Amino acid sequence: MNLILIDPNEVSPRGNVALSDQRAVHIREVLNGREGQSLRVGLLNGATGTGMIRSVRDDEVTLRCVFGAEPPPMPQVDLLLALPRPKVMKRLWAPLAAMGIGQLFLVNAQKVERYYFDSHVLEPEFYTLRIRAGLEQAMDTRLPQVRICRQLKPFIEDELDELVPGAQRLVADPAAEARISDVVKPSRTDRVLMAIGPEGGWSAFELDLLREHGFQLVGLGPRILRTDTACVALLALVNEALRES
Amino acid sequence: MNLILIDPNEVSPRGNVALSDQRAVHIREVLNGREGQSLRVGLLNGATGTGMIRSVRDDEVTLRCVFGAEPPPMPQVDLLLALPRPKVMKRLWAPLAAMGIGQLFLVNAQKVERYYFDSHVLEPEFYTLRIRAGLEQAMDTRLPQVRICRQLKPFIEDELDELVPGAQRLVADPAAEARISDVVKPSRTDRVLMAIGPEGGWSAFELDLLREHGFQLVGLGPRILRTDTACVALLALVNEALRES
Repeated sequence: MNLILIDPNEVSPRGNVALSDQRAVHIREVLNGREGQSLRVGLLNGATGTGMIRSVRDDEVTLRCVFGAEPPPMPQVDLLLALPRPKVMKRLWAPLAAMGIGQLFLVNAQKVERYYFDSHVLEPEFYTLRIRAGLEQAMDTRLPQVRICRQLKPFIEDELDELVPGAQRLVADPAAEARISDVVKPSRTDRVLMAIGPEGGWSAFELDLLREHGFQLVGLGPRILRTDTACVALLALVNEALRES
Repeated sequence: MNLILIDPNEVSPRGNVALSDQRAVHIREVLNGREGQSLRVGLLNGATGTGMIRSVRDDEVTLRCVFGAEPPPMPQVDLLLALPRPKVMKRLWAPLAAMGIGQLFLVNAQKVERYYFDSHVLEPEFYTLRIRAGLEQAMDTRLPQVRICRQLKPFIEDELDELVPGAQRLVADPAAEARISDVVKPSRTDRVLMAIGPEGGWSAFELDLLREHGFQLVGLGPRILRTDTACVALLALVNEALRES
C-alpha cells in the first residue's frame, strides 16, 4: 500500500478517521506506524493528502487527515475484455486497477465459457477489495466502473457509442502488424477503448463485428501471451502512447 | 500451452517422441488429443515444427515430429531485476519467459531481504518448469539464461560489460520523465538491458552506481506498480520500441 484509501463517510468534519479493518493491520504491522508519523491517504474517488497517526491500538488506528492534492491524472483507457477464467480474473482485478482504467467491460465471446459469468469473482464484494488494493498500490483514488455484459453483439451495437463516446477503438490481434505506438497519438485522441479477446481468440464473426464498429487491429508481435500478461502489456503500451512526450 | 516443448534427447532419429509427464496429460485432457491430430512442437533452444499424434494411452502419448520452422526472433532484452519476495518471484518466472528475455540477472539491493536468496523458488528444478511453461505459452523455445548475483556492485563493475556488450542500458525510475519510446530506437540499438529495482526503490547509492555505468533513467508515469506488473509493462514497452514499425 502506497496510499491508504478512505471512504468519505469515514472522515469526521475535523478530518479524523478511525480504522479497524485490514488498513489498521497494514499500518500497524507492515508500515510499523507510530504516533506522529505521516502517511499518504486518499479519499475514494477524490483527493489525496496526508494522514498523521494519532494513535495505534490493537483494535484501532486513528488518523488526522488533510486532503487537497490531486490524484494521478484520470485514466484515459477503457478496457473491453472477454471474460477470462475465474482463476485468471481473480488475480487480474488489482493489476488492472493499478494500471489505471476508467471503465471495464467484461463481455461474452464464443470462446468464453458460460459458467465464468456465475463465478463469485464477479461479485462486487469480491472485486471491490481487490480494485481498492490496486488503487492503493498505484496511489490512485478513482474506482474503475465495472460492467458485465453477457451479450456481446447488442452491447457493441447499442451501448458502446454512448458509454465510450469519441474514444479511439483498438482490438488486439496476434496477426496484426500495426503497433499501438504507431496508431495512438496524443495529438489525435485523448481516450482509447482497448478490446482484448479470450485465450482462444475472437471468432471471425466477433472480429468482423468489432471491425465494423470502428475497432482497429493492433499487434504485440509474434509471442502469444496469457490474458493477464497481455492486459498489462497492452495497457502499458496505450498509456505510454497517450502520454505527451 | 500453444506449443509442446521437447528436449532434443527425447527425439528418436526418425522423429518419434514418447511423453509421459504433464505434457502427456495436457495433450490428453486439455487439447483432447486424438490419433492423427497435429500439434505445434518445439525443440528446446531450437526449431519449432509439427508433431502428429501416433497414439494416446493413459500412461503415454507418442508423437511423430518434424522440426524445421524458426522460433520467434531472439529476445532483444536482458533484465536486471532486484530479487523480489519469493511469493512474487514464484509467479514471475512464466510471464518473464513468455514476454521474452535473453538473460535474467537477479541481483541484491539494499531493500532486498537477504532471506529471499535462500528461497526454493531460485532452484533450477523449481523455475525451469515455470520458464518452460512461459515459453510454451509464447511459442518460443529458447530458455533465458538465469544468473543470481548476491552482490550488486562487483556485478555491475566487473561482469556486466562482458555479459551484455553493447546493449543500451535503462533503469526504471518513477520520477523519470523520459519515456522508453523516446529513448529506445531500433535505428540506434538492437539490444536493451533493463534494470528494475525492488518494491521500495533503489537506494541513492545504487541509482548513482547504475547511472555511472551508463544506465539511463526512464519512467512509466505517476502510477507505482508492483514488481510483477512493472516487469511486464516495461518489457512490453521495450519490445515494442525495438520492433521495426
